[in-house]
Amino acid sequence: MAGDSHHPERSAVAALAEEFLAGLREWLTIPSIGVDPAHHADVHRSAQWLADRLRADGWPEVEVWDHGPALPAVYACWPAADPGAPTVLVYGHHDVQPVDPVDRWHHPPFEPVTSGDELLGRGASDDKGQVAMHLLAVKAHLAATGRNAPGVTLKLFIEGEEESGSPHLRKLLEDHRDDLGCDLVVFTDTGVHDRDTPTVNTGQRGVLGGEITFFGGTDDVHSGRAGGAIPNPATALARLVAALHDEDGRIQLPGFYDDVREPTERERADYAALPFDERRWLAQNAGGAQAVAGEPGYTTFERIWVRPTAEVNGLSSGYTGPGLKTIIPASATAKISFRLVPDQLPENVAGQLREFVAQHTPDGIRAEVSFRGTGVPPYAISPDDPANEAVRDALELAFDQPVRFARAGGSGPAAVLQAWLGVPLVYLGATLPDDRVHAPNERVVVPLLLKGAEAAAHLWRMLPERLTR
Amino acid sequence: MAGDSHHPERSAVAALAEEFLAGLREWLTIPSIGVDPAHHADVHRSAQWLADRLRADGWPEVEVWDHGPALPAVYACWPAADPGAPTVLVYGHHDVQPVDPVDRWHHPPFEPVTSGDELLGRGASDDKGQVAMHLLAVKAHLAATGRNAPGVTLKLFIEGEEESGSPHLRKLLEDHRDDLGCDLVVFTDTGVHDRDTPTVNTGQRGVLGGEITFFGGTDDVHSGRAGGAIPNPATALARLVAALHDEDGRIQLPGFYDDVREPTERERADYAALPFDERRWLAQNAGGAQAVAGEPGYTTFERIWVRPTAEVNGLSSGYTGPGLKTIIPASATAKISFRLVPDQLPENVAGQLREFVAQHTPDGIRAEVSFRGTGVPPYAISPDDPANEAVRDALELAFDQPVRFARAGGSGPAAVLQAWLGVPLVYLGATLPDDRVHAPNERVVVPLLLKGAEAAAHLWRMLPERLTR
Ligand SMILES: [Zn+2]
Ligand SMILES: [Zn+2]
Repeated sequence: MAGDSHHPERSAVAALAEEFLAGLREWLTIPSIGVDPAHHADVHRSAQWLADRLRADGWPEVEVWDHGPALPAVYACWPAADPGAPTVLVYGHHDVQPVDPVDRWHHPPFEPVTSGDELLGRGASDDKGQVAMHLLAVKAHLAATGRNAPGVTLKLFIEGEEESGSPHLRKLLEDHRDDLGCDLVVFTDTGVHDRDTPTVNTGQRGVLGGEITFFGGTDDVHSGRAGGAIPNPATALARLVAALHDEDGRIQLPGFYDDVREPTERERADYAALPFDERRWLAQNAGGAQAVAGEPGYTTFERIWVRPTAEVNGLSSGYTGPGLKTIIPASATAKISFRLVPDQLPENVAGQLREFVAQHTPDGIRAEVSFRGTGVPPYAISPDDPANEAVRDALELAFDQPVRFARAGGSGPAAVLQAWLGVPLVYLGATLPDDRVHAPNERVVVPLLLKGAEAAAHLWRMLPERLTR
Repeated sequence: MAGDSHHPERSAVAALAEEFLAGLREWLTIPSIGVDPAHHADVHRSAQWLADRLRADGWPEVEVWDHGPALPAVYACWPAADPGAPTVLVYGHHDVQPVDPVDRWHHPPFEPVTSGDELLGRGASDDKGQVAMHLLAVKAHLAATGRNAPGVTLKLFIEGEEESGSPHLRKLLEDHRDDLGCDLVVFTDTGVHDRDTPTVNTGQRGVLGGEITFFGGTDDVHSGRAGGAIPNPATALARLVAALHDEDGRIQLPGFYDDVREPTERERADYAALPFDERRWLAQNAGGAQAVAGEPGYTTFERIWVRPTAEVNGLSSGYTGPGLKTIIPASATAKISFRLVPDQLPENVAGQLREFVAQHTPDGIRAEVSFRGTGVPPYAISPDDPANEAVRDALELAFDQPVRFARAGGSGPAAVLQAWLGVPLVYLGATLPDDRVHAPNERVVVPLLLKGAEAAAHLWRMLPERLTR
């Protein structure tokens, strides 16, 4: 198979695989935990490691953007031989999640180990593994085509703050507008549906998180003194939370669904064709939940990919220690986040939540609403987009099987990149939903990374013909 | 006034006042915090102090019941000269509340200070002040009548675990059934409506506290992975809490109101005649609540005295720290307590709550309900009861003004005493609702304690004629 004459990219990837893995393992030893200031020096080391590797690989232009306030990002450019070829910007990140609870890891998180066809370590899947996959893809593309420059002008933009919510991404895009100009963005921080079902991701939900506090009195009150005769902010807040969904689970913010784009018949058919084992999904993807539940008329995949949701993330009020204190609490707080779908905008939903809270604040209660930042907009691209079809075809070549389109339920900076750069954004990744990203014992399945590299190599070869500019 | 020939009890109290205060101040220096094991030795010292004082006062029979598991209680008996005279058991407690937050005290809590006509210190009002008041009353009664034994056989039962919820009270009553036999219980841990409005308390609400936990999955889940497709236990719990009351604030447990005794017209008229300043009540009794609220058709006093209530005391679920975690929590907990009125029984309400929770547990959620102990039953006695009328008349003599009947919204062991001893229980106390009991800077108003002692002295003189056995 590796020597199949129709797939010189496959042979090239296979030949480079050992070197690729050695490099990735080295990179994974650097604990580039961006959210932890104690590890900021490691984030710098990680950026430097990547820049050095890119130079060693022959990338003609490599920069570490390390002028603050953002943690260092790595930029690289490899111009196509043909000056008329399209330009593709590959986005990824080299910062990694924290490792708590560290005692639940079966090995030290920054001493990667191999187990069967898996490589385990923090960042193996999210996102160093997939960035390294793209470095491998370029080498394989050049080797397979016998060229000394890629078929498209390739730009790499690997940020260091994704796990912190990309707080300075807009500023980086603004400061480096000229460097980052392109015809297409390829977003690497994504994956396939499962090991046997390769898919192309076509979108992510947005997110808006906030906090609602209801204030009653200035102090907790003994319920023997006033119970039954004053409003209880915890009860009032529970009533607000209860009113957030109707009996069918539809969200009751005024106008919440006005901007929601229904999935097309083609998208619904694609999602319905994906294998779904409810028990396995509950155990592996849903924290051991006892049952599925949600908006009637939508499948589980539709509920998590193309439908918005409102989730209570935390509740706190009054006395929560052991035993009981018979108080009427002075205040009660709910943390609530919304996952959003095209074309909902976080700023509109913020306004809708403020209006909803005002409608549900009873007499004798004062409400405060605050938001964590401005939220992340949702993003989706049509499966009919020519760039997306090219990605699908590249994956089919690499996986030797039909590839369907799917979506992701989480959130990322895709919409920000797309909006600032003004070009289509497609996803190309080869990780799995059960890679335990953001959890102990993160792993990546190495054969999938190799197939992802092969697909990218195909893509760089195919794109000039496929992309109408 | 002090020398009024119609009130020899008043002169006697005045003559003994200085000695009374010196003794009380000494007792208040003992930090008998029963809920804190570090202070259990102090609870023993407090019991010993009281026993010594009773012996010094001439009580012929004094015992410290200190045989575990209960913290020490003090028992004393002073038989009437007339063997046919009724027997009265005076109940109080010598343990005190903790002093946290201690930095909000303006003086050390166990170094009592005098300010104007107030004595400040932990226990000054609840309940050492009122127990000392009864010791003074007996001395004044003997001095005023010139006898060397009281007009009724007096028994004192001063427990050391009231602030811990009297966990061993039933056992004490059982172990000392013979000692504690009586015709009437006088309950001292109570007060009057306000400084200018003496009242006789006629009842306390009961209480039942519990905890409801809703379990979803085994772990918190990232809302991007499953949000919209599994039940959220925090939302489910909020819906249960919201369903606990209807729009009018009526509690929705099945059968909750079946055993609720409506107040009589006479009781409602008594309560309506009491002065009520809403702004002042909100500030002083209701923790600075912004407004009154509650069941339509009932006044604030009725809502807190003769109507049951269900209050959320605490809520906790998911992430409650700074910022946001976009999780679907694995579980959610509400602490809820019910204040009960005659003839509700805590054990019945516990069953109703279990039934209500079962009705409101959605698919995919598992519920756990637990209770803190077995609850405290409510207690009330009719204002028309002859013993109650005697108390009212005694207070009118002491206060030189009409005395009305009121109730208390809190809970205490009155119903347990009444049920075990099988005799009426009346309340005689002279503290104020704003004495800051259970809070920093507890105080008692000394002239009220002296009037309370005078009233008790009148009562011991009057009771033999008034009490039909
Ligand atoms: Zn990532
Ligand atoms: Zn007390």
